[in-house]
Amino acid sequence: MRLSRKSDYAVRAVRYLATLPEGGRGSISTIAEGEAIPREFLAKILKDLTQAKILKAYKGVSGGYQLSKPPTKITFLEVIEAIDGPIKLSLCTDTRASNLHRRAANDELCKFWKAQEQKIVKTLKSQTFGKFRGKTKR
Amino acid sequence: MRLSRKSDYAVRAVRYLATLPEGGRGSISTIAEGEAIPREFLAKILKDLTQAKILKAYKGVSGGYQLSKPPTKITFLEVIEAIDGPIKLSLCTDTRASNLHRRAANDELCKFWKAQEQKIVKTLKSQTFGKFRGKTKR
Repeated sequence: MRLSRKSDYAVRAVRYLATLPEGGRGSISTIAEGEAIPREFLAKILKDLTQAKILKAYKGVSGGYQLSKPPTKITFLEVIEAIDGPIKLSLCTDTRASNLHRRAANDELCKFWKAQEQKIVKTLKSQTFGKFRGKTKR
Repeated sequence: MRLSRKSDYAVRAVRYLATLPEGGRGSISTIAEGEAIPREFLAKILKDLTQAKILKAYKGVSGGYQLSKPPTKITFLEVIEAIDGPIKLSLCTDTRASNLHRRAANDELCKFWKAQEQKIVKTLKSQTFGKFRGKTKR
């Protein structure tokens, strides 16, 4: 069980921007270096986060990426879901996967995964990037 | 964030055997059909679980797979770890991945993932297959 690599990096990229002074911008290069994220992969991630309106992209010399709202208003959940879609812990809770979910309603195992999924979603929804504000990263 | 497909199926395969009367055996075909697992993939999974001594394999006409201990003694955690190795939620908690973990000790984000990982491990360790004993699956 693990976070996808793409989501893992996305959370780190947003954390990087959250540590900057309010309204601060980061370039692909500074974020990639600051968080040890492969540059090409990061470019795709920043594009996804911009499309999801979590980031704003600016062009030009003083361009870069900026959080589109205060870090306290951005949850871990929305960043992860912007990258991977809704969290589905098991095949049986994933209505997009096969037809397993159809017979899952009375399946005790599936109920267990569903309950775990709900706990994780609740935790990730309660976590915002506010706690990183104004901190140097490490 | 999700369970690997292989672990997801492995838990289902063990659950299938746990529902059988004590000492019951299941063939690849009956498990594959009972749990809707692709047969070839299941063969690999059963091999891994046998190597991990969670299952015993029997050859011949009355052959098949059997749990190597009572379902109450098999945890979800050991089945998942037999398939995927130790649970590592994030790159930063994975000492096998890159060198991120070395600078992770004081990283607030990594501490968060570590705490979540520990919660998940604790939950999976507390769950055994005993609850499926003697039940028809669904």
